[in-house]
Amino acid sequence: MQQQTLVLIQCADEVGLVARISNVLAQQKLNIVTMREYVDEANNKFFVRVVCSGIPEHADILQQELTKTLPYNASVKINPANRKKIVLLVTKEHHCLADILVRNYFDTLHADVLAVIGNYESLGTFTEKFEIPFHYVSHEEKSKSDFEHGISDLLTHYDADFIILAKFMRILSPEFVGKFKDKVINIHHSFLPAFIGANPYRQAQNRGVKIIGATAHFVTNDLDEGPIIVQRTKSIHHGYDLTEMVTAGKEIEKAVLSHALKLLTEDRVMLNGNKTVIFE
Amino acid sequence: MQQQTLVLIQCADEVGLVARISNVLAQQKLNIVTMREYVDEANNKFFVRVVCSGIPEHADILQQELTKTLPYNASVKINPANRKKIVLLVTKEHHCLADILVRNYFDTLHADVLAVIGNYESLGTFTEKFEIPFHYVSHEEKSKSDFEHGISDLLTHYDADFIILAKFMRILSPEFVGKFKDKVINIHHSFLPAFIGANPYRQAQNRGVKIIGATAHFVTNDLDEGPIIVQRTKSIHHGYDLTEMVTAGKEIEKAVLSHALKLLTEDRVMLNGNKTVIFE
Amino acid sequence: MQQQTLVLIQCADEVGLVARISNVLAQQKLNIVTMREYVDEANNKFFVRVVCSGIPEHADILQQELTKTLPYNASVKINPANRKKIVLLVTKEHHCLADILVRNYFDTLHADVLAVIGNYESLGTFTEKFEIPFHYVSHEEKSKSDFEHGISDLLTHYDADFIILAKFMRILSPEFVGKFKDKVINIHHSFLPAFIGANPYRQAQNRGVKIIGATAHFVTNDLDEGPIIVQRTKSIHHGYDLTEMVTAGKEIEKAVLSHALKLLTEDRVMLNGNKTVIFE
Amino acid sequence: MQQQTLVLIQCADEVGLVARISNVLAQQKLNIVTMREYVDEANNKFFVRVVCSGIPEHADILQQELTKTLPYNASVKINPANRKKIVLLVTKEHHCLADILVRNYFDTLHADVLAVIGNYESLGTFTEKFEIPFHYVSHEEKSKSDFEHGISDLLTHYDADFIILAKFMRILSPEFVGKFKDKVINIHHSFLPAFIGANPYRQAQNRGVKIIGATAHFVTNDLDEGPIIVQRTKSIHHGYDLTEMVTAGKEIEKAVLSHALKLLTEDRVMLNGNKTVIFE
Repeated sequence: MQQQTLVLIQCADEVGLVARISNVLAQQKLNIVTMREYVDEANNKFFVRVVCSGIPEHADILQQELTKTLPYNASVKINPANRKKIVLLVTKEHHCLADILVRNYFDTLHADVLAVIGNYESLGTFTEKFEIPFHYVSHEEKSKSDFEHGISDLLTHYDADFIILAKFMRILSPEFVGKFKDKVINIHHSFLPAFIGANPYRQAQNRGVKIIGATAHFVTNDLDEGPIIVQRTKSIHHGYDLTEMVTAGKEIEKAVLSHALKLLTEDRVMLNGNKTVIFE
Repeated sequence: MQQQTLVLIQCADEVGLVARISNVLAQQKLNIVTMREYVDEANNKFFVRVVCSGIPEHADILQQELTKTLPYNASVKINPANRKKIVLLVTKEHHCLADILVRNYFDTLHADVLAVIGNYESLGTFTEKFEIPFHYVSHEEKSKSDFEHGISDLLTHYDADFIILAKFMRILSPEFVGKFKDKVINIHHSFLPAFIGANPYRQAQNRGVKIIGATAHFVTNDLDEGPIIVQRTKSIHHGYDLTEMVTAGKEIEKAVLSHALKLLTEDRVMLNGNKTVIFE
Repeated sequence: MQQQTLVLIQCADEVGLVARISNVLAQQKLNIVTMREYVDEANNKFFVRVVCSGIPEHADILQQELTKTLPYNASVKINPANRKKIVLLVTKEHHCLADILVRNYFDTLHADVLAVIGNYESLGTFTEKFEIPFHYVSHEEKSKSDFEHGISDLLTHYDADFIILAKFMRILSPEFVGKFKDKVINIHHSFLPAFIGANPYRQAQNRGVKIIGATAHFVTNDLDEGPIIVQRTKSIHHGYDLTEMVTAGKEIEKAVLSHALKLLTEDRVMLNGNKTVIFE
Repeated sequence: MQQQTLVLIQCADEVGLVARISNVLAQQKLNIVTMREYVDEANNKFFVRVVCSGIPEHADILQQELTKTLPYNASVKINPANRKKIVLLVTKEHHCLADILVRNYFDTLHADVLAVIGNYESLGTFTEKFEIPFHYVSHEEKSKSDFEHGISDLLTHYDADFIILAKFMRILSPEFVGKFKDKVINIHHSFLPAFIGANPYRQAQNRGVKIIGATAHFVTNDLDEGPIIVQRTKSIHHGYDLTEMVTAGKEIEKAVLSHALKLLTEDRVMLNGNKTVIFE
């Protein structure tokens, strides 16, 4: 396969941006394979993701030329780390973890899982089958701050691009979230903004809804209110008891998280305030 | 087609109910075609919908025999009004109204639309194309109570089985809802319980969700919190502006309302507190 | 709303096309709002759909400049007829017809239905409610050629951009299809290529499939084998008898046809051999 | 959880079957929890799946009483092997295998995977991580008959209830299929009956379909024509190349196969000629 260059740009919107960008790319002998752009008119923002065939002779010159032609303060990323480094945080449920570890093992993730951190020991044996280190950091008998420091030190050590809360059932402090800004992804077991917080399936059952769902989103300091990446729902009926809802929900959760991970590792997700722009 | 008898039973759960019911039916020479039952274990309630081939010689004897064999206070309905009478309430949006009027015109609704009541005049001409009376009851320059009396008198006149709020954009008072208990159905343009109240698509856009949806539900005195009949969602992406969300949403709204109507007119919906039991 | 210019280009693929096209647009003071492109690598073909804000001072100069900068034999369309003219062909089933006529009546189609042609009279009264002329052209007691001439004369008279077979149950001759090349759209009541030809629901029932579906496609001389525009399926189960399959299927058919019509009237569909390129 | 009795009956249809069956169950002190029945009117067949709370004092008396009350030649199964024994056959693709092995490992399958048989060695290491024996039976340099005998001997040894072709890419002979009648399940990577046989994704791409799908079905001697258990589709667009279709397809394949497996292991699937009756 021919080599490709990925260019991600985010800037104020102006007339002629596509022409200017494509001219710079042409001058650098890069041929556009796909270009997907989005203009947020209300906020006058421009987003573009360009895949070019070829690689620039001097990536820094490409960066300079793009920056020169774009509005002040443009964000220009050329070939952001091609293989993302991922650390998973888990509690006791295995379904999302197993799904990701299998993909990682067979190398269909286009990323590398470096480690799994669990606040219970129970998923250690399974994780280690795949030659991935499992770190047990208990939340018990210590302060939240100490608990988070334990995790935070590991994350710093692994220098992860994305920290995936693969059914990690502890709420993280603003300090922690701030330290790993825009890197922490959660899978919430409801179609947000419905059923925020604990026990969404029980909430769903009490409300008598006819759908269940899951949401993958960036973690911010507002519980379950960060930018949404992927959501999916499934029809249910009155006959689903809580166990059946949970069981059916797990299938959605792992599909949603796995799809979000694919989008993230392929650099298809851009943040736009509390929303995401996703170039599928 | 052979004649059929429909039996709907709701009662306290007990051992042997299916045997007892099916024995009574057999004694009355009714052969079970389909029997769908549901036990709400938490609340010890039993629900069953039986379709039999044949008709009972004496419907009142069947009713007596079933009541005799069932727990105290059982609700037994035999062949509830086969063709439901429906009145539609509308404001300005046409999509749900048109969908139902077309089905009514070609007689695929298994029910009869008797009239349409609008708080604007704008849908009158369209309605009357289908030889359905359109009553214009304005909410302007009168009290809520007067407005609702105007509607209520018409509904009483038509003796409707179901009052369908086909994008009727006024909130109804507890008095009104109480008067037509378990008969008023609304279509809400979000996947409840998300985005209750006004402008759900704007709420959805502000939140940056990746799905939109619609919910058909019984109207109670808690806004958008009545028993849910049908819900459906559709995937959207960042590129949907408000107009596109509304346009896409209308397709879901009319599909959801039309499906709910089918379930209601075929006597497939039973109320169970604030939830529904639906035998599709 | 600001005026926009739509540019559709189809040509051999070459290095630098996006840059060249966007330069021409910039010179003509057109700002790119959205640009969607596709490269068919196997066949070395390039397709692009560009929406610009602004209108060119001289559309013919824009056309010339684009043609000059593009490979030999490029197809360049600027603002193709903004409102398409549509004629519907029907037999006896009303669901697709009614769906389109309602959209046309409330002007949400972004196109104009000029007439309906039926080979039975039965849908005439309904059509005329919407002030649309209905032409009854019977296929009985005449040759296929005479029958098709009757239709063909009407279509020529109306100069339709698209001829929609909205459940028109006669197979059209190669002469007819050739005369209205790339303009005739059919809705087939199966998920093609499964269940080609007559009675797809019966075929589906005999096979015991767990899904039904519908396909909107261009009509060519190979029965049900033309380029596919939209397909959708729905889950069914063993309990669906033929009538229930047909009833459920109609909901899919009209949704699929209506979605295809939206894509066509918004100039989002380009032909690529026996396939379509669709810029949603 | 209280003990339950599962009763599966298949017989000629007659008046009063539900009453007779429920009477026998009541006499045996079994309370019906759920009863799902289906009448195939065209073929005069009756199918029922009853879950009762309680266990019969004498299962053989229950069996006798049911047989006595039912038409001649009725099939009556009481508590069929509660945990099914499963053997998987694989070639090189891991996605279905991994999905099932993970479920087996965490015991969410309600069945036991006894062994995996591969005609390549490549999935052995992975399989053995889960302490499941992997048997390598090459098809190379031997006759089809010898190859199948190798597999057949292993299957006989394991006495499997179901033999799951989890992307096993060899066509099995009528002798083999006959030997394991109604026990061999395949996952085919298309929405059957479309794209039977080899390379369905390539066929799909050539046809330009807008959906892909997968089908889990019983294997018979007509290639890809056995009774269908589960089918699902997913929308695609012109931009999917073959690799992307295959990748997206794998997600559907494993979801479909896993759902079929759940239905089979919970005794929810009954055969009805070349179709299935499925009580979800």
